[in-house]
Amino acid sequence: MWRAVSTLSDVSEFLADAGGKAVVKTARGGYDGKGVRVVTDADDVADWLADARDGGPRLMAEEAVEFDRELAIQVARRPSGEIRSWPVVESIQRDGICSEVIAPAPGFSPRAERDARRIAELIATKLDVTGVLAVEMFEAGERLLVNELAMRPHNSGHWTIDAAVTSQFEQHLRAVLDLPLGDTAATASVAVMANVLGGARTVLPEALADVVDGGAKVHLYGKDVRPGRKVGHVTVAGDDVETVYRRAVEAAAIVRDGPAARPQRREMR
Amino acid sequence: MWRAVSTLSDVSEFLADAGGKAVVKTARGGYDGKGVRVVTDADDVADWLADARDGGPRLMAEEAVEFDRELAIQVARRPSGEIRSWPVVESIQRDGICSEVIAPAPGFSPRAERDARRIAELIATKLDVTGVLAVEMFEAGERLLVNELAMRPHNSGHWTIDAAVTSQFEQHLRAVLDLPLGDTAATASVAVMANVLGGARTVLPEALADVVDGGAKVHLYGKDVRPGRKVGHVTVAGDDVETVYRRAVEAAAIVRDGPAARPQRREMR
Repeated sequence: MWRAVSTLSDVSEFLADAGGKAVVKTARGGYDGKGVRVVTDADDVADWLADARDGGPRLMAEEAVEFDRELAIQVARRPSGEIRSWPVVESIQRDGICSEVIAPAPGFSPRAERDARRIAELIATKLDVTGVLAVEMFEAGERLLVNELAMRPHNSGHWTIDAAVTSQFEQHLRAVLDLPLGDTAATASVAVMANVLGGARTVLPEALADVVDGGAKVHLYGKDVRPGRKVGHVTVAGDDVETVYRRAVEAAAIVRDGPAARPQRREMR
Repeated sequence: MWRAVSTLSDVSEFLADAGGKAVVKTARGGYDGKGVRVVTDADDVADWLADARDGGPRLMAEEAVEFDRELAIQVARRPSGEIRSWPVVESIQRDGICSEVIAPAPGFSPRAERDARRIAELIATKLDVTGVLAVEMFEAGERLLVNELAMRPHNSGHWTIDAAVTSQFEQHLRAVLDLPLGDTAATASVAVMANVLGGARTVLPEALADVVDGGAKVHLYGKDVRPGRKVGHVTVAGDDVETVYRRAVEAAAIVRDGPAARPQRREMR
């Protein structure tokens, strides 16, 4: 359930219909947690409603959905119709920003994998997509709920650069040029991509000297460093998911904060 | 055994000392079979001797060596001394030009692998190499004979782009910047690189549409196409060496001559 909302009473009414909790989003400029708020009271978005009246982005309210984890799948389609998907990944969000991606999604059943691929490929076909499309989903018990579409190579597919036969970027070029699509198989049992958000470091290339893990593939985007901004990522591939996860997160922490940074002992889930 | 030679009698004398067979090389401009001749008579290089007298490249004669196959190993070294080698590969030459590379070299024993790595790393260390060095060797029974050194990323290491954790090009940059070197492990059981020599095609990018094998990674160098010139390569990775070899050679043939080209059913050895 979702509705456009433009007044406090619109929001209150939606909250009443949706059980007291809603996700309000701006119709433009939403990414990395920006333009998204979970609200239980219309006053929570009073500022956005005022902005919208002043010519700012219009607003929509969505029913809040309970889910177990977030998944994503990349699919590529070329004009002549050929379509290929990469394995389904788990996307771990912190403060609304993708923090890590685990490929493939741990403990995802072959049946669920088939369902997710079917959903993603159906969307790409029905929307007549050319290129790479990222389909983000919520896993809620046995249900897969499509949460967001990104019509391009996407953060949740960066692992393919280092750990798939064909990366999402090569595939996007193949697709838009209507060339045969490349093999989307993974080249490792597991790969983990950890984003590097802007932190204490200001000269990112120096960080490369401190990442001594020879299997950590560090990608820097050449962006100005601002706190919390995605400025790079690290991918590690290997056999054991816990080990690979730890190595990726530690390398990303070193790039962000230097070798003295305490490794971020995050739980995977 | 080798000597500089500048006259017909120099060459005859060398042939007598070397058992009637020698390899004569020009001291400059030698690559892909150019500037190398196997000779049994001084007259075989009469033209080169005349060139040398007219200011052309000077000549050297080397003892001809019997060998079983050609191998190569890439080694990277950074100024602070860290050194890493990739697995030893087999290099298959046709008419003096590298045709295919199989990584790792089939049937190469762990002991021979250790010997080859030790030789390559010793050379890199003694020569104080910074960057990637390719060491080409002849395998002659139990002996490994160093044949040629290339002080750079090299054709025999192109397979690392698609089938090693760290490619020779990334590693070369890491080494010259004195950054920690990357993991040199292969990401597949076997990879085969097949060179694309200039052939019937004149517009290489069109060839991409004809390579329908999604696992064939096609690399085109943007060079003018001339017969026999290396203008690109194809790498295929997988589990079975015969299958991977066939796929790589077939894809390279399609890039060279188009989809109607009869697959080149070459023997691996």
